Amino acid sequence: MKKISLLGATGSIGMQTIDILLAYPEKFKLVAFSSGKNIEKTIEIINQLQPELVSVQEEQAAIDLQQQFPNIHFTYGNKGLVEVATHPDSSVLLNAVLGSVGLESTLAAIRMGKTIAIANKETLVTAGHIVMAEAKKYNATILPVDSEHSAIFQSMNGENRKQVNRIIITASGGSFRDKTREELKHVTVKEALNHPNWSMGAKITIDSATMMNKGLEVIEAHVLFDLPYDQIDVLLHKESIIHSLVEYDDTSVIAQLGTPDMRVPIQYALSFPDRYPVKDSARLNLAQIGQLHFTEVDFDRYRAVKLAYEAGRTGGTILTAMNAANEAAVSLFLQEKISFLQIDEIIEQIMNDHNNILMPDLETILHVDSQTRKTVLGMVK
Amino acid sequence: MKKISLLGATGSIGMQTIDILLAYPEKFKLVAFSSGKNIEKTIEIINQLQPELVSVQEEQAAIDLQQQFPNIHFTYGNKGLVEVATHPDSSVLLNAVLGSVGLESTLAAIRMGKTIAIANKETLVTAGHIVMAEAKKYNATILPVDSEHSAIFQSMNGENRKQVNRIIITASGGSFRDKTREELKHVTVKEALNHPNWSMGAKITIDSATMMNKGLEVIEAHVLFDLPYDQIDVLLHKESIIHSLVEYDDTSVIAQLGTPDMRVPIQYALSFPDRYPVKDSARLNLAQIGQLHFTEVDFDRYRAVKLAYEAGRTGGTILTAMNAANEAAVSLFLQEKISFLQIDEIIEQIMNDHNNILMPDLETILHVDSQTRKTVLGMVK
Repeated sequence: MKKISLLGATGSIGMQTIDILLAYPEKFKLVAFSSGKNIEKTIEIINQLQPELVSVQEEQAAIDLQQQFPNIHFTYGNKGLVEVATHPDSSVLLNAVLGSVGLESTLAAIRMGKTIAIANKETLVTAGHIVMAEAKKYNATILPVDSEHSAIFQSMNGENRKQVNRIIITASGGSFRDKTREELKHVTVKEALNHPNWSMGAKITIDSATMMNKGLEVIEAHVLFDLPYDQIDVLLHKESIIHSLVEYDDTSVIAQLGTPDMRVPIQYALSFPDRYPVKDSARLNLAQIGQLHFTEVDFDRYRAVKLAYEAGRTGGTILTAMNAANEAAVSLFLQEKISFLQIDEIIEQIMNDHNNILMPDLETILHVDSQTRKTVLGMVK
Repeated sequence: MKKISLLGATGSIGMQTIDILLAYPEKFKLVAFSSGKNIEKTIEIINQLQPELVSVQEEQAAIDLQQQFPNIHFTYGNKGLVEVATHPDSSVLLNAVLGSVGLESTLAAIRMGKTIAIANKETLVTAGHIVMAEAKKYNATILPVDSEHSAIFQSMNGENRKQVNRIIITASGGSFRDKTREELKHVTVKEALNHPNWSMGAKITIDSATMMNKGLEVIEAHVLFDLPYDQIDVLLHKESIIHSLVEYDDTSVIAQLGTPDMRVPIQYALSFPDRYPVKDSARLNLAQIGQLHFTEVDFDRYRAVKLAYEAGRTGGTILTAMNAANEAAVSLFLQEKISFLQIDEIIEQIMNDHNNILMPDLETILHVDSQTRKTVLGMVK
């Protein structure tokens, strides 16, 4: 029985995680979770899985829930995330919160030597050097949850990582993959949110349309698998069936494939090294699919990918600046305050103006993060 | 330094093995090999790799070579194959002979606990139950050399074999994949030998055109990976880029891909668990390839696959009868004594007439093998 702490239970990844925990009560026990403002869903999870500790966003919500569930301990805010992450009974932390709020709590869990199943990109993109150094020091295992990184991780099972020649991250190309950059000028939020393959949260769906998602994944892959950027490629593959590939020194390529279903990589991060059936998940039928397509990524068309490689190769606080600029710009786009192409433009401007600090500490990262968000908001009147 | 015995050095697989041994003199040492009637090539290998023991087909050739190379020990015939296979210095036997002559020598090497890299299909198809039982008893490792079985083996690295749900063997479809069964009536030997993707020996190229090759591979996979036939699928994939796939209980599919180059799986069987660069082997470039295609196998069109599944599910000497009938029929087709479609028809007739013996011993297998060949020759006046 694995005991689980879950950060971000009411988000897209969190709710799919809950489904998995409900399907395998004999294998997993949810001991603690955090949620945001969705109290109705929070109560539902409490009733379904009877955790010991729950953290919500607001203090008043914690007080109200405490009265309703006297046998469960409630907490709130940032300290609540840390309490959930460091619950003494859990051996695995699944971090599925969005944004930089997941950073401190993840580091706290790492320092307890827990296994971290990480779906939170910001933790690895902005503080990868700290996270991996601490994981090594405290012997904590970091397992990927993203379908691409899970595919890479699975394709390295039983292999000598020194004999990896290259990893190839596949990209669906997002909602606008059939449009030229010129045609992107007047696309709407609604169009951008219509992803062809994956059902995900709004922010990640926009990141998928700009392909900043893929840029962030390149950086995560660099951090997780300790490979230079020259050995990390991105490949357009519109069917999202091959989730990513690993090429070895002998030219052999190992890949993980499947129907697009996020529950598979989420469950694998929890069940690793074992595999259990995923309820109602469709088996891959390649004959039915018939064809798989592959195209090179045009870095002028998908400027966000180029910017991410640049930030990654530079390293330091420019990664935080790039990520914060992207989050703020996507938020402005979702509010219809800027156009789709302005997302890339804002990120590029922030990166051009950035005074980079290499090997930043956590305080510096959090400072650059909040400053950059303010700067981006100031750019739009 | 791994010390190698090689059966069938002057065949297609054998010569590619020699290339690999020449490329890695610091990793591999050829201590013994067998060859057929190609004495010129045999002398070339002796000069290049200085083995201790060489076996040729004919006694007179052994006598002549002994005079020319007094420091090397020469032998011949079937006992020569056993001597090569059981050379006390070698830890790995690569069996690349064609036909049932490889059977006794392989069993002899297994009983010495050697690692067997097996490219000889007949050994596993006709005597799989004996080979695997002996390998278990004498703690001998059996490694596949075929690209498909190597792909399956590689896709199981680090995985729990109990969590394998299905293996999917890919098939190029061979020289006639775009023809209907009706159109096969008048195809020529020359057309049949023109394989679209792989450069192989004549017998295997014909087996690829009938897809008996794939049928034999299904049986080998059943033996090697201990899976029931219901969990072994065949998938038409004309580009031969995905060499085979393994589906796990969680619907994840792991696959091995690469450009079609037999040296990669041959070398992997020798270098396992490590991987070394394969000289001049082309790296896979999926963007350049652009598309991969997949189609279900039509068992009426490819009747040999259906026959192989039937023989496999039945088990016993019918496997030997089917394999011997195929070898004899292919030989008759190559001599232009029968038509292409008569290959399947002869196999089917032999199977229909066969008095099956389950769990046959080696003597029975060899007897059924020679009897079946005679029967097939008798069918053609």
